[in-house]
Amino acid sequence: MQITGEMLIGGSAVRGTKGTLRAFDPARNAEIEPAFGAGGSAEVERACGFAAAAFDPYRLAPLETRARFIEAIADNIMALGDALIERAQAESALPKARLEGERGRTVGQLKLFASLAREGRWLTATLDSPLPDRKPLPRSDLRMQKIAVGPVAVFGASNFPLAFSVAGGDTASALAAGCPVVVKAHPAHLGTSELVGRAIQKAVQDAGLPEGVFSLLIGAGNEIGEALVAHPAIKSVGFTGSRRGGLALVDIASRRREPIPVFAEMSSVNPFFVLPGALAKRAESIANGFVESVTLGVGQFCTNPGLVLVLDSPQTKTFIDAAAQALAKKGAQTMLTPGIAAAYKDGIARRGDVNGVQAVAQGAQTDAACSALPALFATNATQFLAEAALEDEIFGPSSLIVTCADVGEMIKVTEYLEGQLTATLQVEPEDHELARQLLPTLERKAGRILANGFPTGVEVSYAMVHGGPFPATSDPRATSVGATAIDRFLRPVCYQDLPAALLPEAVQDDNPLKLWRLRDGKLAQS
Amino acid sequence: MQITGEMLIGGSAVRGTKGTLRAFDPARNAEIEPAFGAGGSAEVERACGFAAAAFDPYRLAPLETRARFIEAIADNIMALGDALIERAQAESALPKARLEGERGRTVGQLKLFASLAREGRWLTATLDSPLPDRKPLPRSDLRMQKIAVGPVAVFGASNFPLAFSVAGGDTASALAAGCPVVVKAHPAHLGTSELVGRAIQKAVQDAGLPEGVFSLLIGAGNEIGEALVAHPAIKSVGFTGSRRGGLALVDIASRRREPIPVFAEMSSVNPFFVLPGALAKRAESIANGFVESVTLGVGQFCTNPGLVLVLDSPQTKTFIDAAAQALAKKGAQTMLTPGIAAAYKDGIARRGDVNGVQAVAQGAQTDAACSALPALFATNATQFLAEAALEDEIFGPSSLIVTCADVGEMIKVTEYLEGQLTATLQVEPEDHELARQLLPTLERKAGRILANGFPTGVEVSYAMVHGGPFPATSDPRATSVGATAIDRFLRPVCYQDLPAALLPEAVQDDNPLKLWRLRDGKLAQS
Repeated sequence: MQITGEMLIGGSAVRGTKGTLRAFDPARNAEIEPAFGAGGSAEVERACGFAAAAFDPYRLAPLETRARFIEAIADNIMALGDALIERAQAESALPKARLEGERGRTVGQLKLFASLAREGRWLTATLDSPLPDRKPLPRSDLRMQKIAVGPVAVFGASNFPLAFSVAGGDTASALAAGCPVVVKAHPAHLGTSELVGRAIQKAVQDAGLPEGVFSLLIGAGNEIGEALVAHPAIKSVGFTGSRRGGLALVDIASRRREPIPVFAEMSSVNPFFVLPGALAKRAESIANGFVESVTLGVGQFCTNPGLVLVLDSPQTKTFIDAAAQALAKKGAQTMLTPGIAAAYKDGIARRGDVNGVQAVAQGAQTDAACSALPALFATNATQFLAEAALEDEIFGPSSLIVTCADVGEMIKVTEYLEGQLTATLQVEPEDHELARQLLPTLERKAGRILANGFPTGVEVSYAMVHGGPFPATSDPRATSVGATAIDRFLRPVCYQDLPAALLPEAVQDDNPLKLWRLRDGKLAQS
Repeated sequence: MQITGEMLIGGSAVRGTKGTLRAFDPARNAEIEPAFGAGGSAEVERACGFAAAAFDPYRLAPLETRARFIEAIADNIMALGDALIERAQAESALPKARLEGERGRTVGQLKLFASLAREGRWLTATLDSPLPDRKPLPRSDLRMQKIAVGPVAVFGASNFPLAFSVAGGDTASALAAGCPVVVKAHPAHLGTSELVGRAIQKAVQDAGLPEGVFSLLIGAGNEIGEALVAHPAIKSVGFTGSRRGGLALVDIASRRREPIPVFAEMSSVNPFFVLPGALAKRAESIANGFVESVTLGVGQFCTNPGLVLVLDSPQTKTFIDAAAQALAKKGAQTMLTPGIAAAYKDGIARRGDVNGVQAVAQGAQTDAACSALPALFATNATQFLAEAALEDEIFGPSSLIVTCADVGEMIKVTEYLEGQLTATLQVEPEDHELARQLLPTLERKAGRILANGFPTGVEVSYAMVHGGPFPATSDPRATSVGATAIDRFLRPVCYQDLPAALLPEAVQDDNPLKLWRLRDGKLAQS
């Protein structure tokens, strides 16, 4: 499949006329052909108009049609073959194996959401029987199902050109919910976006669905994305990226005549607690695993462990020394974009300048272009609590070890932290009492709590939560990964005394969709 | 129980020192003793501090404790006896039977949420088994439950001194979710608020729960409510009231350092469609039922049918005439407050002045104080679409009949409408084809769709949705009435590879809470 540099507006490929932009190969330090035409408000208007027109027919089509359509997207992505991986590699400098894994994750995610669409448990079908003889007033026949909220705008992430992008989790869950999707392509991987966008466009056509179910917009600055979020047809937004970018979209969405929710996954330092028993028994192996997690993917994960909390003890030095040694062996690697690399360089320079912060180790210099040198810092809890900037996320292969004088100080630091995507405990049975003290706070602070593992790596499954209190996300009641990501794009509708002939299938008496339903307060598949 | 005019801050009764305010009897046109002391930021700070301190112990207490506590609130409210009804009557001018009914509804609602708290289905317990041998990477043990979001601020409604107030649906659902609650008393029913507040305070004490589980604040202007929503300890807000009031809270909540959701139920005209077959067969009986619904409770319901859509036909005049006749027999009645009565009077005066709007009927003058005269207006669709103000809610016993020239125009008007709490269809089997054309739009526009009934009267049940797209509410994904109101105050937390000894009960292997859980994608009570 040829990359043409066009936007995909419904069933058409449209060349933008508001200037051109090109993808960039950070490893070669060079632009990549072809030039992409940037779109403007006219294309936002057309894409959103198509999406609005497609909404009712798409959401009302049989669930089996919806499921097969989403499966076809997965198949079409696989059919792109090596061309997709090669383009993504050029645009991101991520290794081939990682991108193949990410493609597998993306395709698996689409298949999970296809199976959810087919199964329909998210419809939350609920029936309350009428009570015609109730006194003083009879009760009506009440039935409820969830329906799609409307067209969704999706903004892909820089760090996952496949799994959190054009056909990533936001798109997959919105399509499964019955929402048309308008994606704003991330400028860092324009070619990858077009390839995947065409895979979706083809699936829309082959399924005979209305063309507005999917569009892909391209723009150079923030304008096209802002116009997209402001468009009245858009009813919800999915975003993964920086805190500043996420908050800008939240702001636009809240100023609309009809405010809409923005599900922005933004910023997290993912505190990593090494409790005393674990420190005593496994200081070196934890240190090694931790450094692997910090440097994995050049540290470009939302779940990177950017903050370590450890109690002061004789083994603390062992842990820090082992981590420093392991990190010093890691070479500089190419980051996703020159902008990300520059921000990282700036971030670690500023961190090293903070009073009371020691630069413990840095990785080995290489001649990689656009590169990030791993960096490990250390400080104590008093200093950490005194300097707000030490809690800021530095996106890249860096972390800060904070030594706490005692348990009270560790609890104080934990309570001080902002909202997080994850919190990790390294624990042994003798640490359970301390863990029990920390857990209520960690539940309040984080969307996912891990023990004896590392936070990088986010499983796509039923129980996953990739979310958390602000600023980890803009809405802690949601997850952007896992089956319940679909809940973001649904709203309930109640039907009171509707004639049987007019009832939606999900709440008809004979349960034609064979759903699990709540009938008079009892769950049953009837 | 004595009404003292004090606030309830945790376990204490505190007299505010920021001026005094009194409740008002609109029927007698006179203030009611005693004077209430208004609080300020110091009391907000104390109440929120207590709530934050109570959060972990309250949410982590056994569900049975939580359920019994909520049941005790219901019992304590009943134990207030006639004193509660009499005070509510004086403060609202609502009839005794209505207030007794509303008390029954409030108590029933508390018992429903107590049973939900005990049953725990809302925990959404989900378990994904580990796959240690999976290639290329093993899968961890992943478990998820929902936990309470944190302390909730509740603003009661003027029109339901019991069911949407201190111990109303917002409080009941927040307490059931595990959230401490800080209520800002509605100034229109201060005495009722104190009585109910003391019933809750006693239940907190009797259950041995931390005092911060409940506080009741009193203030004269908007300041205390604004400080409450802005307080960092507050994590969510429940509000029922005007569009302006709701949007002001949404704005404050979005400007916080940590933005929080506001669930505001605000404004709805509840379109009422009389389809041709129903019009031909039942014009008069529909007209009579409609007028009863418009004037019920002096029209002071969020679900009042304020807009009628009817196709132009020979029977249209029959319907309008019958409605006019029925309405003309309705006398003026006392509204909840002088402010509401003045706003109503102003609203109907302005509506009558709109070009192309006919005043079809008005109710009979009486000498009721603070009264509202029922008023019925009519116009055509062209006029309705040309004048945005005609879609505004007039809170009180008034409605506007809009005649549409044909089906196309009816669909056009439907599509033009803002979000609504309800939409009602009067249909006969011969109308089903037209109803099918309208339903997709109604689903997009409203939280509840009724057939052959009237929208006033909101059942508290599992399938109820009292919500809808903006401006009906600030979040169409939520309901403020019915079992799923609890979902507003919950967020998911995932536990990855947590040692069994540290797992919360809801996700322990042997299912000690006997919950319905999703295990590897399958629902089972195991």
